[in-house]
Amino acid sequence: MAKQWVYMFSEGNADQRNLLGGKGANLAEMTRIGLPVPQGFTVSTEACNEYIANGNELSEDMVKQIKDRMKDLNEISGKSFGDSENPLLVSVRSGARISMPGMMDTILNLGLNDVTVEALAKKSNNPRFAWDSYRRFIQMFGDVVQEIDKNKFEAVLDDIKEREGYKYDTELTVDDLKEVVDRYKAIVKEETGKDFPSEPEDQLMQAVEAVFRSWNNPRAIVYRNLNEIPHDYGTAVNVQSMVFGNMGDNSGTGVAFTRNPSTGERKLYGEYLINAQGEDVVAGVRTPEPIARLKEDLPEVYEQFAETAKILEDHYRDMQDMEFTIDDGRLFMLQTRNGKRTAPAALKIAVDMVNEGTITKEEALERIEAKALDQLLHPTFDAEALKEGKVIAEGLAASPGAGTGRIYFTADEAKNAAANGEDVILVRKETSPEDIEGMYASNGILTSRGGMTSHAAVVARGMGTCCVAGVEDIVVDEDQKKMIADGKEYTEGDFISLDGSTGKVYEGSIQTVAPTLSGDFATIMEWADYARRLQVRTNADSPRDAKQALEFGAEGVGLCRTEHMFFDEDRIPAVRKMILSPDVETREKYLAELMPMQKEDFKGMYEVMKEKPITIRLLDPPLHEFLPTDEEEIQALADDMGMTLEEMKANIDSLHEFNPMLGHRGCRLAVTYPEIPAMQTRAIMEAAIEVAEETGADIVPEIMIPLVGMKEELEDVKKTVVETAEKVKEEKGSDISYEVGTMIEIPRAALTADEIAEDAEFFSFGTNDLTQMTFGYSRDDAGKFINEYKEKGFYQVDPFASIDQTGVGKLVQTAVKLGHQTRPDMMMGVCGEHGGDPTSIKFFDKSGLDYVSCSPFRVPIARLAAAQAAIENGKK
Amino acid sequence: MAKQWVYMFSEGNADQRNLLGGKGANLAEMTRIGLPVPQGFTVSTEACNEYIANGNELSEDMVKQIKDRMKDLNEISGKSFGDSENPLLVSVRSGARISMPGMMDTILNLGLNDVTVEALAKKSNNPRFAWDSYRRFIQMFGDVVQEIDKNKFEAVLDDIKEREGYKYDTELTVDDLKEVVDRYKAIVKEETGKDFPSEPEDQLMQAVEAVFRSWNNPRAIVYRNLNEIPHDYGTAVNVQSMVFGNMGDNSGTGVAFTRNPSTGERKLYGEYLINAQGEDVVAGVRTPEPIARLKEDLPEVYEQFAETAKILEDHYRDMQDMEFTIDDGRLFMLQTRNGKRTAPAALKIAVDMVNEGTITKEEALERIEAKALDQLLHPTFDAEALKEGKVIAEGLAASPGAGTGRIYFTADEAKNAAANGEDVILVRKETSPEDIEGMYASNGILTSRGGMTSHAAVVARGMGTCCVAGVEDIVVDEDQKKMIADGKEYTEGDFISLDGSTGKVYEGSIQTVAPTLSGDFATIMEWADYARRLQVRTNADSPRDAKQALEFGAEGVGLCRTEHMFFDEDRIPAVRKMILSPDVETREKYLAELMPMQKEDFKGMYEVMKEKPITIRLLDPPLHEFLPTDEEEIQALADDMGMTLEEMKANIDSLHEFNPMLGHRGCRLAVTYPEIPAMQTRAIMEAAIEVAEETGADIVPEIMIPLVGMKEELEDVKKTVVETAEKVKEEKGSDISYEVGTMIEIPRAALTADEIAEDAEFFSFGTNDLTQMTFGYSRDDAGKFINEYKEKGFYQVDPFASIDQTGVGKLVQTAVKLGHQTRPDMMMGVCGEHGGDPTSIKFFDKSGLDYVSCSPFRVPIARLAAAQAAIENGKK
Repeated sequence: MAKQWVYMFSEGNADQRNLLGGKGANLAEMTRIGLPVPQGFTVSTEACNEYIANGNELSEDMVKQIKDRMKDLNEISGKSFGDSENPLLVSVRSGARISMPGMMDTILNLGLNDVTVEALAKKSNNPRFAWDSYRRFIQMFGDVVQEIDKNKFEAVLDDIKEREGYKYDTELTVDDLKEVVDRYKAIVKEETGKDFPSEPEDQLMQAVEAVFRSWNNPRAIVYRNLNEIPHDYGTAVNVQSMVFGNMGDNSGTGVAFTRNPSTGERKLYGEYLINAQGEDVVAGVRTPEPIARLKEDLPEVYEQFAETAKILEDHYRDMQDMEFTIDDGRLFMLQTRNGKRTAPAALKIAVDMVNEGTITKEEALERIEAKALDQLLHPTFDAEALKEGKVIAEGLAASPGAGTGRIYFTADEAKNAAANGEDVILVRKETSPEDIEGMYASNGILTSRGGMTSHAAVVARGMGTCCVAGVEDIVVDEDQKKMIADGKEYTEGDFISLDGSTGKVYEGSIQTVAPTLSGDFATIMEWADYARRLQVRTNADSPRDAKQALEFGAEGVGLCRTEHMFFDEDRIPAVRKMILSPDVETREKYLAELMPMQKEDFKGMYEVMKEKPITIRLLDPPLHEFLPTDEEEIQALADDMGMTLEEMKANIDSLHEFNPMLGHRGCRLAVTYPEIPAMQTRAIMEAAIEVAEETGADIVPEIMIPLVGMKEELEDVKKTVVETAEKVKEEKGSDISYEVGTMIEIPRAALTADEIAEDAEFFSFGTNDLTQMTFGYSRDDAGKFINEYKEKGFYQVDPFASIDQTGVGKLVQTAVKLGHQTRPDMMMGVCGEHGGDPTSIKFFDKSGLDYVSCSPFRVPIARLAAAQAAIENGKK
Repeated sequence: MAKQWVYMFSEGNADQRNLLGGKGANLAEMTRIGLPVPQGFTVSTEACNEYIANGNELSEDMVKQIKDRMKDLNEISGKSFGDSENPLLVSVRSGARISMPGMMDTILNLGLNDVTVEALAKKSNNPRFAWDSYRRFIQMFGDVVQEIDKNKFEAVLDDIKEREGYKYDTELTVDDLKEVVDRYKAIVKEETGKDFPSEPEDQLMQAVEAVFRSWNNPRAIVYRNLNEIPHDYGTAVNVQSMVFGNMGDNSGTGVAFTRNPSTGERKLYGEYLINAQGEDVVAGVRTPEPIARLKEDLPEVYEQFAETAKILEDHYRDMQDMEFTIDDGRLFMLQTRNGKRTAPAALKIAVDMVNEGTITKEEALERIEAKALDQLLHPTFDAEALKEGKVIAEGLAASPGAGTGRIYFTADEAKNAAANGEDVILVRKETSPEDIEGMYASNGILTSRGGMTSHAAVVARGMGTCCVAGVEDIVVDEDQKKMIADGKEYTEGDFISLDGSTGKVYEGSIQTVAPTLSGDFATIMEWADYARRLQVRTNADSPRDAKQALEFGAEGVGLCRTEHMFFDEDRIPAVRKMILSPDVETREKYLAELMPMQKEDFKGMYEVMKEKPITIRLLDPPLHEFLPTDEEEIQALADDMGMTLEEMKANIDSLHEFNPMLGHRGCRLAVTYPEIPAMQTRAIMEAAIEVAEETGADIVPEIMIPLVGMKEELEDVKKTVVETAEKVKEEKGSDISYEVGTMIEIPRAALTADEIAEDAEFFSFGTNDLTQMTFGYSRDDAGKFINEYKEKGFYQVDPFASIDQTGVGKLVQTAVKLGHQTRPDMMMGVCGEHGGDPTSIKFFDKSGLDYVSCSPFRVPIARLAAAQAAIENGKK
């Protein structure tokens, strides 16, 4: 027997979303529970995949089953598809498993031709309605099935309206519409070389094929890539009897939510139009009425609709987004689905529904998209103030949040201005590690170059500072301290405002509103903390970040990078001289200068975090990153160290690397310059001991050795660390405990984690580097091909945004298993960017890690995602 | 009961090499089979490891056991250690599992002090002998146990000789020697702050400890690293009763081999000195006599020795290297071991012993060190001619073999001169990919910069051309076309000669001798081919290389790199214009220019290899490698393409990468520029079809896609390849078969090999890149730390020379397993440099690969190593 490709609505239910798509499954479900739904059938997602695998051809089975179901539909409706007296018309819509814009649009009124249009005119007693429906059908079919430029159709309407002196489409007469139909058909003939298909079955098959084809149109592929939707889901096609909202004043159409999707308030929310078809609502020619008005217009229908909405929300146990049509006083439900909502609404609805007794706390947690919390965790523009804002340019929304301030063109000036209490926006062509402090001091960062993974973007996201990157329309002149945007010149000190969530740049200062973690948000977080198994730490390099993260609920610092502290203006000269030292003695001299400063950094961290753990990573980047690049600075450094410019340049050149990512960094530095980890260990230990004494807190420093690939490296550096730490303890008469662990970020470390665990007291997975090395490409250089990879659909997920479970994830799981073989109670966490990604967090929970660590502004997201993971993985 | 740490010679046997060390095991074995051996005992390697683990301290057990065995020795010898009348003296020697220079030297005459020296004088009736033995003992002990600068002792001797007007040590009188002893003791007191130990037991314990400590002296560690000897083997200590070869004219000492170690000839070979101790032979004061002379001097002893040598060779079934002493007419064997031999001798001895019926063919194959064949596979200097050679500089022995010719300073000039029939040596500061052709045309390459992994070194080894790299004493002036070596100026056209096996640079032309693969060598290769399971292919980019490899027995080409063909002077302009093309059409135009040339390359390869497989890798390196770097060439290219210099520079800059290794290369190029693999596929297919038609050979092209990390990449590029190949087949009316496979060189590819095998018809492990990515460092950049890693003993083996079985090897085995799950009959090979390394070959054999591929000059090594692997792994 042939496989079933087509299902009547009455055959399915809500659980068959994968087979019937979301829309089809819900139409079936509404049919099943007795709600008024225009009947029809669904061609399944399996049929779509089969169609594609078959070289874009409908199989004979499919065609036969569609025709058979059409016959069933004739019977149900009491009409007949293509009939010259009582013709059945249908709509054709796509409906994937997950709601997905970019797919094919709706086709209404399918089944009309020169014969059936007359029957419709006669039966409706409304020839204008019939011919308008016909021309609309041809226009939609021509556009979406035959891919004819829709402007060609619009041009005909405009032409006739101009000729006749009409202002609105509604002024077109029946004869005008007949002329439109004729001219539309001519366009189709010219564009396709064939007559417009007059046979309804032919129209139907073409429409079904067009839906299937649209699954792989570029917009749809891009959308799936952006939203991490697998490419093999396929779409279903829904064929449904037409009902008409444009049959008179007791007809209409509308959309509504069972609760307010912006605020979550429990009240029907939506709008409708009397005497209109769906597309009129969208077209915006007439202004729809709020749904409450329906109570006055058609009170009985309103009652029935309100009742239906309640049934649906109770049935689905979630806020519903519904489409309906009123055909001659009769209500028809065309669609229902769980409604999209803003993050505040999501929180309120979830909490309310728990309080109403509709869902459990676990369900409430599962209902909220963790990523969506992001919009609540950054400053936003005051909605009223924003209305006055003038957009002067647009770039990439590189780091979310809103910021306002005076513009400065160098990091130093930004920093100084901020120190004077000014609100600052740093404007640069692009940023580099030397700009860190200035970036840190700013309310926002604007760059005219660079993409989503540029230095500015990555660092800003880490800091939680808003950033608009790659604003190519703005000309930045750092030397002249000015920028030109939208034809106007802005100079140092002028106010601008940035929205890092939209990429918009505004003139002047716009008031911002700080994020709060209270009310429903706080309630959800409390539930999440109860539900989750994974701990949530934060990546923080400064007391300020640590404090912010604590407010957001961080339970420790999973990654404190010591190198960011090296870029401070007061320190960089000593850092550079340390790096360029000709011998160990000289290097130790400069390190001794740096030690007290590093110690103060760590004291600051411990004072904030108290007993909460802080994992401090020893110096990681290649040393050349700290060296000056511009001639003037090189000259100054040369003078300072008593060298000629040429000597200094040669000195700097000697540190050049072909592949810095694969070069002399991480523990490789610590092995060759043991005096560096010795200095850092001393700073950490002294800081911990002193703060412990001052505050009475029981501090256990966690010292992390980066980039280990072989147990021998770890052994060697650990020896330096332990020797120094023990010496400090002795000097200070302290019996403080401390732990020495390692990053797992080199494939070989994961593969030999059993050996490495002999010396490592904890593991922290550096999944950024691990991803780069496992894939064999650097993020800095992948720009040249990675977009093409995304467009071609190579990735189910972007491996830098969400961990590649098939490859990189296998290494993580191998390392967890091997590490625990050697040291069963070993603490293991993740400190890469994946630590803040909900999908990755689920994977890490399942893989048995103990914590994730993420930037402060992602801590609440991680808390919720960890709870969802625990619920899904059934671990807690 | 305490563990046994000490073994009498009579307790052990030859199989206990791991426990007793090589020397100890053989002394025990000789004792066991009744040969005359001065008796003694061995402190085991386990004791050494325990000593080190114990913080360099002998345990009580050990001390007690040594003392007890000393008592046994007193009994056996009929003398008594420390006795004032009949004192026992002993020698103390190190003896590791594997013979290992760099360890502690021998100490003779231990047990002497102010009392026993008199007894010895009296008993030997030779006070001079006794006092000379005493001063020698103090000197040796002071040097190797107490680590006192030995020049201090020499100075005393010199002082007295000068004072007395002596020329030789032998002129020293008993009184002189007594003075020497006193002054030696004073030195010891001054240097150590303590008296010279007079207690024999104390002397013994200190000597044993010194041997154990010497296991971890820097020289020993370096030697182990260089020779891939594990650091946890430990050394044993042999304590043996002294016999004296310096007791008169019926005493003597010598060393001998059972066969000639240079030629393999079956005849006693060695030398001896009458009336001498071992160190006299080494010191070179007197010239030793050939062993044959012993027949005249002491015919009975000679007979006994010849008989003993035969017993030993028969017993060990291998050529022996023996030390003996004649004490007052009595022969004593002090040591025997399998003798080291040159590669030709190894071959002859192995073949002879099979013919003599002593060993099997398998044993013969196992006896020959595969790596040692290298010296037979390159041109060498004629031995007579070399005697006249004048060394003018020395550098790194970067690529073996000898070469002579006129010097040229640019690749182009070298190429032109070679085209005119000149013998050429290319001299450069360093080489780059643009120099390939000139390097290829040269008999040898000399660079003044760069190490063993510099471009010159790596490429030269691949080509089998001799290379001396990093000759820092030579000043190369490429502009002036001259070099200064040893104070003399050499200009273009002057003759020099290079020995890439020693790193020596000679003035003038020295005649070379070509390698042959005949005689014993051919016999061994024949046996190896019968024994091995692994196929041996070669890496060859040119017909010349392929031909050379065929002569050496290659069974196919495992890696033909297409990019080397792109650097040809005739092609590089088109290559560059192709790369810098603004659009696909332009790029296709230049590719069309390149296609016929690539096709000719491949035809050349197929004409040589006929039906033997050739795996051709599609373009791999980042495109910027092909672009010019010097201003003049950039200008020329700009003119050629109608751009300004600035535009061209910007164009070139846009291809810059931060980490080229992790950038836009390999299949990533093929995905983004499908027209490149399309061109290359066309060239391959047309070449194969045409050569197949011309020769009737059944050619099956193997097209290999590099740098795949995801199955999606392979799918995409394979589609391009297959479409093009099918088109060519159709155009040519051919039904040729072909295979499309991939490199496994990205960690993720290994981890997901099951998925990748769905599309790959073969795997070739690129273990060079796989090693770099798995360790997370590039060879180009590792120079800054890798030497330190080696010195610190981080590596059991250099992972670039021999595959890292723990980490990288695990990925290889994972990929083999996963790949075979999907495609059980899949052909898998290795084409990294590891393919020519015997240890790695054993690992690959065990891992179930089908072939290894290596440079032409390593093919015979690989054939032998593959045979040894099959025998060891018991697979064939």
